[in-house]
Amino acid sequence: MCDWKAALVLVLAAGCSEAGEQLPSADELTPDALDSSAIQPIPQTVDLDARRVALGDQLFHERRLSADDTLSCSSCHDLHTGGVDGLRSSIGIRGQVGPINAPTVFNSGLHFRQFWDGRALTLEDQVNGPTHAPGEMGSSWEQILGKLGADPDYVASFAAIYPDGITAANVRDAIATFERSLITPDSAFDRYLRGEASALSEDARRGYRMFTEYGCASCHQGVGMGGNMFQRFGVMGDYFADRGNVTDTDMGRFNVTHRDEDRHVFRVPSLRNIARTAPYFHDGSAPDLARAVRTMAHYQLGRELDDGEVVALVAFLESLTGRYRGAPL
Amino acid sequence: MCDWKAALVLVLAAGCSEAGEQLPSADELTPDALDSSAIQPIPQTVDLDARRVALGDQLFHERRLSADDTLSCSSCHDLHTGGVDGLRSSIGIRGQVGPINAPTVFNSGLHFRQFWDGRALTLEDQVNGPTHAPGEMGSSWEQILGKLGADPDYVASFAAIYPDGITAANVRDAIATFERSLITPDSAFDRYLRGEASALSEDARRGYRMFTEYGCASCHQGVGMGGNMFQRFGVMGDYFADRGNVTDTDMGRFNVTHRDEDRHVFRVPSLRNIARTAPYFHDGSAPDLARAVRTMAHYQLGRELDDGEVVALVAFLESLTGRYRGAPL
Repeated sequence: MCDWKAALVLVLAAGCSEAGEQLPSADELTPDALDSSAIQPIPQTVDLDARRVALGDQLFHERRLSADDTLSCSSCHDLHTGGVDGLRSSIGIRGQVGPINAPTVFNSGLHFRQFWDGRALTLEDQVNGPTHAPGEMGSSWEQILGKLGADPDYVASFAAIYPDGITAANVRDAIATFERSLITPDSAFDRYLRGEASALSEDARRGYRMFTEYGCASCHQGVGMGGNMFQRFGVMGDYFADRGNVTDTDMGRFNVTHRDEDRHVFRVPSLRNIARTAPYFHDGSAPDLARAVRTMAHYQLGRELDDGEVVALVAFLESLTGRYRGAPL
Repeated sequence: MCDWKAALVLVLAAGCSEAGEQLPSADELTPDALDSSAIQPIPQTVDLDARRVALGDQLFHERRLSADDTLSCSSCHDLHTGGVDGLRSSIGIRGQVGPINAPTVFNSGLHFRQFWDGRALTLEDQVNGPTHAPGEMGSSWEQILGKLGADPDYVASFAAIYPDGITAANVRDAIATFERSLITPDSAFDRYLRGEASALSEDARRGYRMFTEYGCASCHQGVGMGGNMFQRFGVMGDYFADRGNVTDTDMGRFNVTHRDEDRHVFRVPSLRNIARTAPYFHDGSAPDLARAVRTMAHYQLGRELDDGEVVALVAFLESLTGRYRGAPL
């Protein structure tokens, strides 16, 4: 990304003169500055059917979705812990250690695909994954529908919303609708974007500038600051050769398409609430933001960050933690 | 703190050779290295009466402790959001904006005093504060005991534990006992202290070294990494003159003792889970860890940190987030 465009994004996003003391003058603005690399705040609300959200909330926390009634969606995507489990890789039924780091469910409705490899096009489709994976919840629609259908409360809840009652499609619909409600507005950064210049520290403001100028925002863009494109992990260097012990999971989107060009390609993760979702990357290899930022710069941008850049970028990333239902994430 | 002592703390704490590649040799160890500046991991469990913990949990979330039944302890100390509210200063009944940043309740049982100014010697005594402050919960023991006494469930719960039933002392005892249960073991740093060298990134390990060598650990020490002494905010510079708009709250411990030497003196806050409790300081003036670290170094140590130091110290602070009841904080 060339510098003038990054600067324009900054001008547009800052939205008030207080924040813009070092920004280019307004005559450098062009309509092209309104391109997709701009980052927009998360909206305050999302319009959803409240009954389906409530039922989906219940199902999201329903352990009977797993084969042995021990795990719910929230076991690995705890809404009280950033929508993740804080582990390098998640743990399925019977203590099975999974192959990949659990992405947060917060703001997942903003993603163009689901899973690290984007194999699900919709949140509805995503529900089939963990419920059925033998190493995760290990269940089946037959089992799930049987258990829910034996519970009069669920029978009544579904009947009130869906004419055809408890079906796999309706379970998926309810959970996906609930997940779309998991937005996290009002981060310090979003407040800054809306004109509250003091919401960001000087470090964080410097970090935002670097984030756009260095090209981070080329991939981590849009409302979700990620989640809307695929990208290779290791554009400017071979992350996997350097890390070693390459697994099937590291193949990323190749596992879906079996095309050579999709090796090590992943959905760009959202950076929203990133300070809440350590450890980082699909392999959970980065324990903190400094490590994650250095790794991204090296392998994605071919840039060795100096410490001042790391400070600023980490402070910027800390500003991305929003609120869920009014409470800080 | 002199360097050899800091280094010895490191040696002792690291506890395994993998982490100690740049540390002094074992012949530099002396018994004095076991002084109070060493940081110990948070224990896995704390021995408490489970019935009183459960009752205290209920009371901690009881809105009837406030005058208008709108606020509970958890309103400002939400256990799902780091034990804080994420605001610069907290909000009491009828929307009153308070004068000070809410400290987290997690690990408050490790503190030698309670409140920023240490005016309560015990957690039991602390309960009197927010429940009665007109700008916080605005209630009284008469009101509180009246409401709880009118609830047969509470009458039964108290009677089962306390021979004298519902009394102010027993309410305080239950809440304080619950608060003592709010420990957060298993942070990456504690796992490192226990020998898991890979739990910390290189940055975080450098940060730990600086943390002890520069003297941060002189005040942020012990299991709580703080919370066990008073210290002036502004040892090496006048923070309050620089910040401006000095309030009564800024007087800190002076408000308790009315001694000149206690102006701007505060209980040293615990750094446990610090990445979860922004914004920082009693005035909530630091929005992120970089800002907080720079301010501390400047005003407490008379040291201007370079960016490499900030990176390392922030990474170290990120490693201090523990788990509560098994879930990441």
